Amino acid sequence: TVSAAAAAESKAEEKGIEKEEMIEAAPSSLLREEADATGMRASFEKMIREAQDSICAAIEEIDGTKFHEDAWTRPGGGGGISRVMQNGNVFEKAGINVSVVYGTMPQEAYRAATGTAEKGEGKSTEQGKAGRIPFFAAGISSVMHPKNPKAPTVHFNYRYFETDSQMEGGPRGWWFGGGTDLTPSYLFTEDAQHFHGTLKDTCDKHDEAFYPRFKTWCDEYFYNQHRGERRGIGGVFFDDMNDRDPEELLAFATDMANSVVPAYCPLVVKHKDDEFTETEKEWQQIRRGRYVEFNLVYDRGTTFGLKTGGRIESILMSLPLTARWEYDQVPEEGSEEEKLLEACRNPPDDWFAL
Amino acid sequence: TVSAAAAAESKAEEKGIEKEEMIEAAPSSLLREEADATGMRASFEKMIREAQDSICAAIEEIDGTKFHEDAWTRPGGGGGISRVMQNGNVFEKAGINVSVVYGTMPQEAYRAATGTAEKGEGKSTEQGKAGRIPFFAAGISSVMHPKNPKAPTVHFNYRYFETDSQMEGGPRGWWFGGGTDLTPSYLFTEDAQHFHGTLKDTCDKHDEAFYPRFKTWCDEYFYNQHRGERRGIGGVFFDDMNDRDPEELLAFATDMANSVVPAYCPLVVKHKDDEFTETEKEWQQIRRGRYVEFNLVYDRGTTFGLKTGGRIESILMSLPLTARWEYDQVPEEGSEEEKLLEACRNPPDDWFAL
Repeated sequence: TVSAAAAAESKAEEKGIEKEEMIEAAPSSLLREEADATGMRASFEKMIREAQDSICAAIEEIDGTKFHEDAWTRPGGGGGISRVMQNGNVFEKAGINVSVVYGTMPQEAYRAATGTAEKGEGKSTEQGKAGRIPFFAAGISSVMHPKNPKAPTVHFNYRYFETDSQMEGGPRGWWFGGGTDLTPSYLFTEDAQHFHGTLKDTCDKHDEAFYPRFKTWCDEYFYNQHRGERRGIGGVFFDDMNDRDPEELLAFATDMANSVVPAYCPLVVKHKDDEFTETEKEWQQIRRGRYVEFNLVYDRGTTFGLKTGGRIESILMSLPLTARWEYDQVPEEGSEEEKLLEACRNPPDDWFAL
Repeated sequence: TVSAAAAAESKAEEKGIEKEEMIEAAPSSLLREEADATGMRASFEKMIREAQDSICAAIEEIDGTKFHEDAWTRPGGGGGISRVMQNGNVFEKAGINVSVVYGTMPQEAYRAATGTAEKGEGKSTEQGKAGRIPFFAAGISSVMHPKNPKAPTVHFNYRYFETDSQMEGGPRGWWFGGGTDLTPSYLFTEDAQHFHGTLKDTCDKHDEAFYPRFKTWCDEYFYNQHRGERRGIGGVFFDDMNDRDPEELLAFATDMANSVVPAYCPLVVKHKDDEFTETEKEWQQIRRGRYVEFNLVYDRGTTFGLKTGGRIESILMSLPLTARWEYDQVPEEGSEEEKLLEACRNPPDDWFAL
């Protein structure tokens, strides 16, 4: 394990994020001192840590067991707190992670991402060492997989991003992103309506244009292109949001994080003790396989984390405890399994019109 | 399922490979008629189909059950034959696939791959429609996962590639690639020596420089970078081989394919009835999770297949029937599990010196 640690360290160095150090207990703030302790960085950290506390409390109450907590910091600043529940009474695996990252990315990556290279803009007046662009990212992310195949999996993630870029003519150096989405193995229309409805109500309080736009974005994002099917039945997803006052966007992200419990928890409570057959359990495991396919092949958060030297165990916490791949498994016509698959292939434009 | 088929078809069209049509029985050849029925394309197809037959026969004899066969062709030429054994007596899942693909790839992809763009070369005198470069690929690929955690998983793949490129100053438009590698959950040094030794003997008959070079290449290729560990204990891997007479390379690929049975089958026979604990079975499932990570995040064959519209069920046949992800699972010091992990982290330079 000495050699593994050395390998991880050398990998992290070349990728621009320092190796993390595990610590005994979570510190009051993961931010660097002074400059970051006020303003949006501090407000956002406070929000995601309160959300982690309140959502963990709600899940612990349903499950009857406690989350295990791991905390770490990095020498140059930043860190994270992972809370994981494995093999609980209700949940097979649930993880809620907050992290604060001070990192750098190659200049070319930043230019490519923002399109400034093509426009001949983006001349740098001040850069980090070796032409790398400093960035700051803070976020909460979570996946919860219940045991019962009738109870759905949920994922949510809310994040705030800044670059220290001093590029002339570059885009504004901050944005918000996030979303909450549901992955059931069996489709209950009234559950889908409750979930989407709760998210829609929260969106509507901020902007009635949000829900329709972010619902479609979610359907487009969580897409296993090679199978022509979505991971689940969606919810909302948004990224690169910086078109209004940052305080308004913080308020929106806060309300969305707070809507996870009312949107999701009633569905788990309703189905956690449902009867099920061995065939239904196997179908859940096959859907978990699709979940793994999406996260490892397409998910930007996962692939970004894997490629920038983040803490692997926290990034891959999203993977289910167990998954299954059967060759050429096709649900019977007219079955409940086919009904779910159809919703993943052709999501309804309007869940409330069903 | 009608909409799924339509989605797959439209996807395949935009990617340049036509949608496959399932057929009742495998045809005598998957090649287009006339022009391809002689020469290397025909010789290579004959070799991989004979290898599929002989390796399937050896596995069926060990397992006591039969492979299921699916065959397909594409309207414009090419096709494949998948043979799958699922939930056999000895094997949890085993697949041996041959395929012949006539496709096109974007000109930019070809130039980027060959480096001709940078050198200012590669002016095309004759191109496929819409500036795409035609290619031909034929190969055999296989993964076999036994049930017993003491019995190792094997993977092999042998392929022949041609481009119809008429580029001036471009590289030679054909090459061979392939390899055979072992993924045990528990390390038995004498098994590793038998496996590597059989491959080395076959390599040595063709060129004594092959084994050391291809052993290192294999260790570098089957690498889960985010974990700092290899998928298994390697074997041999090579690609882009066109530095000698194609007939010599065909003879080498043929001998390598024929060495799969003597290298692998004795190990399965030896361990298929070993006693094991529940903990050992869980460790196998965790290692299967790492296998999934490699195949979905890094493997070129898998990602190429997923992104060019190949037959999904055949491409993902390589995934295990079941896999497991435990949060922060670390083997006990001095355990058999740690011994395997150490070999994945720091593979010995010379298996025969142990």
